[in-house]
Amino acid sequence: MHVLAVVAHPDDAEIFCGGTLAKHAARGDDVTIAYMTRGEFGGFDTTEAELAATREEEARNAAAVLGADVTFLDFQDGRIVYTLENRLKLVDCIREHAPDIILTHFADDMHPDHRETSRLVTDAYYMVSLPLLEREHPPCDPTNVYYFGKPTSSFEPTVIVDVTDHEETKEQAALEHESQVAWLEEHGGIDAEFSDFVESMRATAHALGRQAGATYAEGFTRLHDTSVDYLE
Amino acid sequence: MHVLAVVAHPDDAEIFCGGTLAKHAARGDDVTIAYMTRGEFGGFDTTEAELAATREEEARNAAAVLGADVTFLDFQDGRIVYTLENRLKLVDCIREHAPDIILTHFADDMHPDHRETSRLVTDAYYMVSLPLLEREHPPCDPTNVYYFGKPTSSFEPTVIVDVTDHEETKEQAALEHESQVAWLEEHGGIDAEFSDFVESMRATAHALGRQAGATYAEGFTRLHDTSVDYLE
Amino acid sequence: MHVLAVVAHPDDAEIFCGGTLAKHAARGDDVTIAYMTRGEFGGFDTTEAELAATREEEARNAAAVLGADVTFLDFQDGRIVYTLENRLKLVDCIREHAPDIILTHFADDMHPDHRETSRLVTDAYYMVSLPLLEREHPPCDPTNVYYFGKPTSSFEPTVIVDVTDHEETKEQAALEHESQVAWLEEHGGIDAEFSDFVESMRATAHALGRQAGATYAEGFTRLHDTSVDYLE
Amino acid sequence: MHVLAVVAHPDDAEIFCGGTLAKHAARGDDVTIAYMTRGEFGGFDTTEAELAATREEEARNAAAVLGADVTFLDFQDGRIVYTLENRLKLVDCIREHAPDIILTHFADDMHPDHRETSRLVTDAYYMVSLPLLEREHPPCDPTNVYYFGKPTSSFEPTVIVDVTDHEETKEQAALEHESQVAWLEEHGGIDAEFSDFVESMRATAHALGRQAGATYAEGFTRLHDTSVDYLE
Amino acid sequence: MHVLAVVAHPDDAEIFCGGTLAKHAARGDDVTIAYMTRGEFGGFDTTEAELAATREEEARNAAAVLGADVTFLDFQDGRIVYTLENRLKLVDCIREHAPDIILTHFADDMHPDHRETSRLVTDAYYMVSLPLLEREHPPCDPTNVYYFGKPTSSFEPTVIVDVTDHEETKEQAALEHESQVAWLEEHGGIDAEFSDFVESMRATAHALGRQAGATYAEGFTRLHDTSVDYLE
Amino acid sequence: MHVLAVVAHPDDAEIFCGGTLAKHAARGDDVTIAYMTRGEFGGFDTTEAELAATREEEARNAAAVLGADVTFLDFQDGRIVYTLENRLKLVDCIREHAPDIILTHFADDMHPDHRETSRLVTDAYYMVSLPLLEREHPPCDPTNVYYFGKPTSSFEPTVIVDVTDHEETKEQAALEHESQVAWLEEHGGIDAEFSDFVESMRATAHALGRQAGATYAEGFTRLHDTSVDYLE
Repeated sequence: MHVLAVVAHPDDAEIFCGGTLAKHAARGDDVTIAYMTRGEFGGFDTTEAELAATREEEARNAAAVLGADVTFLDFQDGRIVYTLENRLKLVDCIREHAPDIILTHFADDMHPDHRETSRLVTDAYYMVSLPLLEREHPPCDPTNVYYFGKPTSSFEPTVIVDVTDHEETKEQAALEHESQVAWLEEHGGIDAEFSDFVESMRATAHALGRQAGATYAEGFTRLHDTSVDYLE
Repeated sequence: MHVLAVVAHPDDAEIFCGGTLAKHAARGDDVTIAYMTRGEFGGFDTTEAELAATREEEARNAAAVLGADVTFLDFQDGRIVYTLENRLKLVDCIREHAPDIILTHFADDMHPDHRETSRLVTDAYYMVSLPLLEREHPPCDPTNVYYFGKPTSSFEPTVIVDVTDHEETKEQAALEHESQVAWLEEHGGIDAEFSDFVESMRATAHALGRQAGATYAEGFTRLHDTSVDYLE
Repeated sequence: MHVLAVVAHPDDAEIFCGGTLAKHAARGDDVTIAYMTRGEFGGFDTTEAELAATREEEARNAAAVLGADVTFLDFQDGRIVYTLENRLKLVDCIREHAPDIILTHFADDMHPDHRETSRLVTDAYYMVSLPLLEREHPPCDPTNVYYFGKPTSSFEPTVIVDVTDHEETKEQAALEHESQVAWLEEHGGIDAEFSDFVESMRATAHALGRQAGATYAEGFTRLHDTSVDYLE
Repeated sequence: MHVLAVVAHPDDAEIFCGGTLAKHAARGDDVTIAYMTRGEFGGFDTTEAELAATREEEARNAAAVLGADVTFLDFQDGRIVYTLENRLKLVDCIREHAPDIILTHFADDMHPDHRETSRLVTDAYYMVSLPLLEREHPPCDPTNVYYFGKPTSSFEPTVIVDVTDHEETKEQAALEHESQVAWLEEHGGIDAEFSDFVESMRATAHALGRQAGATYAEGFTRLHDTSVDYLE
Repeated sequence: MHVLAVVAHPDDAEIFCGGTLAKHAARGDDVTIAYMTRGEFGGFDTTEAELAATREEEARNAAAVLGADVTFLDFQDGRIVYTLENRLKLVDCIREHAPDIILTHFADDMHPDHRETSRLVTDAYYMVSLPLLEREHPPCDPTNVYYFGKPTSSFEPTVIVDVTDHEETKEQAALEHESQVAWLEEHGGIDAEFSDFVESMRATAHALGRQAGATYAEGFTRLHDTSVDYLE
Repeated sequence: MHVLAVVAHPDDAEIFCGGTLAKHAARGDDVTIAYMTRGEFGGFDTTEAELAATREEEARNAAAVLGADVTFLDFQDGRIVYTLENRLKLVDCIREHAPDIILTHFADDMHPDHRETSRLVTDAYYMVSLPLLEREHPPCDPTNVYYFGKPTSSFEPTVIVDVTDHEETKEQAALEHESQVAWLEEHGGIDAEFSDFVESMRATAHALGRQAGATYAEGFTRLHDTSVDYLE
């Protein structure tokens, strides 16, 4: 099984689906994380180029902890926009990896980069299987798209994955994003919830897990409903 | 695995979860249908006693087609009410069968008997495992309650079961309710949707199935969320 | 009364509102179907140009069965995007036909072409009556926009139209889309629900009809609420 | 056409559906208001008996202004409870008047009397047509139940009735409840919205009317969906 | 300011609103916790009477840590039912303490005792200010009722209270419920989320706090909306 | 405190948040209204340029009544579109005024200009604090964005502001929009609710106020939840 996670920024993979990706990898699935940007806008006393280099390396290290391959799609942090051309870039990315399933941000995420990533991925998904759309890679046919986000009133997970055995790996991966931790501690501001990165991740995973009889869990919605093999 | 379905009236089992019960039975699970009433209020030119006898027999025949055992809880059709005493009757029923899972009506069903059944079952569920509640049968510990209903804006199934291979069995079981078919054809009135019983059942199962990539499906919500073994 | 339906692809008219259009035509209303695209992307072993020609003819035949006129807006299948220029194309289309009401896709439809069509039509609707917007055709003033879609948790119809007397016409019209039936049977994939095109349409119409005391029905939401002449 | 409104307290008819009842009466329909209680708990420096007498007379006068007949069901103000016996009282009331449609409170109204009235009426509705339920009056078969309430996030009207031509009649009827106006001015407390009774009614009707192109409107939900004759 | 919290079981105060009560007490408000039951049904190898005595003492100790007074309403654990008589018991409790605000369970809580407590309190609230309802204590007029519950899709807090400075006190209070911790560890079953009592409480408070810029928070809905002094 | 309201058209400030802005100004806050357009498309027998001049003057007069400064952002009425460039225009506007809070349209408003304004403001908000985004003005850090709209099922205010003492000022400000009143009376059409401009505003404010114990109120949602100082 091949899993492709498309995330807007380097640390989004750990924050939203790191346990799930680690679980996939641990059971032998191929896992690829596609980073839309290198998160190069979230810093100070530096340049975008320097920050991009730093965060790319952190992303590579974090992905290695999770057991995932990486690819960078070269969009600009904070400036992802929806165009037909960008949608075709996502078509190329999906076709190249020909995943069984895709994980990405949910569409109503308030963060503009998350939202546009979600729309680009979803709309690309409707194109990747079309034979008449000729691109570098041949058509492929992923079975579903799973969406992640912060559990709030606008994101209510319906698919809950037990990541208890992978919470530690996820937290180790998250700690690779050193530059971001420093940035958040000094700058903070926009997202108060990052003030204690790892503790917040753990609390979120535990609060969700409680709903499903697990110690730690991550939650998703999905594009297509699917029937269950049996009453779960 | 033992499955207990608690339904208000004889034909509710087929209408709401007949395919799922047949699927359970077909794979070797023990299935019991507990009928709150014999549906003895839904007739004319007859008496409640006569109708009760007729419909009990139909229920037994229909359950046999599905592969299920039956039990009758002797509530009065159209007059099920919520009391502590009635709730203890449900405790006794659940403890007697000690099921792994329970299926029943969803709580916001507009039909009073359906609604009260749902409340009695759910509230009994919170009592059945208590050691200090001493009754005839010892405590038991079902893992979950699944709720069924007509898919409408007030009932949105989140657990969808593919019953394609059991749709025919379900329809055959439904046809055992001869007295009800006649009653609905002549009386109808309240529930226009029963005018063509089996065709309506099939259309509902197909319309729901389409959402989940199945030809025919039945839908449920559940009391407790559960994590999925893997992204379904 | 003049009714304008704006649909993304040739078979969308039949799938979502074919019975309603047939009912309008049958009572003497003028009905026009505006096709955003010719559905020329949904094929294989062919070219877009060939497929466009085939499907345009099928669309004309299907519309003739319903009793509707057609117009083609020449957008590209699978690639409809929201721009101010495209919005003005819809302004021109609406002004040309000066309809009393407009029918189109609902805005949260997951299919990108459906969603963008919905946004273009709705936003054009806010422009068509403005005298200061000078275009080829004079301003017009449709009273409302009605939205259709697959009844799911994200599309809950509030206006239900009884199409029992027109279900057969609708199904005949749907069968004109021969090329699409073949494509769906061999390719399928994306939308499993099309595996049996006409049976699915009928089941959906029946499942919805049951909610409103009709054998077959189609459902809509609307842009503006309207008061009812009397309690329906 | 016969319309039966079942309200918990004397002034509820004017507050929630006075314009609609006046409209029915004005076009020649038979209108009956059944008062569950005489509102005899909402006073001070008086007794329940005295207040009941005063408010019954006010209710009669107000109903006369609307053009409605009245009946009193003799429940106790503030103490309406759901029992099978009380439900049968409502069965008797509905069968006696054999209405085409019934209007009553919506089920999630926070006021206990409103909520219990709603449940009693709805559940009685499921019983009134049953031949085997033998009571003083023969079975009847109303087509639908319409629910009213204060438009809030928990009550979202889907059926909007233009009462512009009857707003004045409704306000005149409301002014008949002199004792209540005095009580609300001095006591208030619980329901701040009654501080200026008639102005609040008018503002509510106007705010709702704006949504549907009317100057004044009242809103309802309904038990059964119905298809519309044509797109309203 | 006087705050009255009405909870079904001894540990519910800490679980749902312990930080808020501690915050009230710390700033000098009078805080009273009314326990509907002593939680005497949740044990084994004991009797209800013994367990009641143990848990009452634990409740007293926990309340002392929070800085709250206690009262016991003598309902039976697991068997709270809605009756007019029980509602009047709540009227007496509320009038005796004459609180400014009341805190209690939210109405859609799946636990039967929580749900019935919520209904009894809310419905009593509508009675406490009525002069014609003569009881031992005179009428009182609390300004609002606040509801608490586990944050899930059925309980979405709209009023969020920062309890960061009181989280430690709350956890200390929770640890007073020694008998319950043991029961949950050995029995568990029904509510998996209690497996690690205090860690779960902290995770829930942190996950909610993140949404509102606080380290730890508790959430409520309220019966009446209120305007804010200024945009918070 | 500095408040920045970004509105699509000159009269939107009064319609949606005029009382709140007047309340801010009255207590000494700096208030600035940024008009995306001059509403120059909403007229007849005139030119866009003439109408822009007229409405700009009306906007200046209305803002003066409220006690607010104004700025015009020079977008085209009826043609606001989302682009990265336009988003940066909003970044510049927000940075120039460095507000504590921002007020703007809610994102699901059906009016295209309102919706695009909402998206541009929200997405700019995520950029204004970034040090690496170098523009004419330095980074700033507003604490929150508040959204306004017509209270309907798609806009449910959660933050309610009592504007009773400022309703008169708001109405006086609204009356400055003379050209618009005339336009709406003769043209109307699109928005029937404007037929009596000021009475509709007052009814809306009163109907909302009733929910929160105020005579007149305005309602908002917000981007970030915030904890309350105390239970409001």
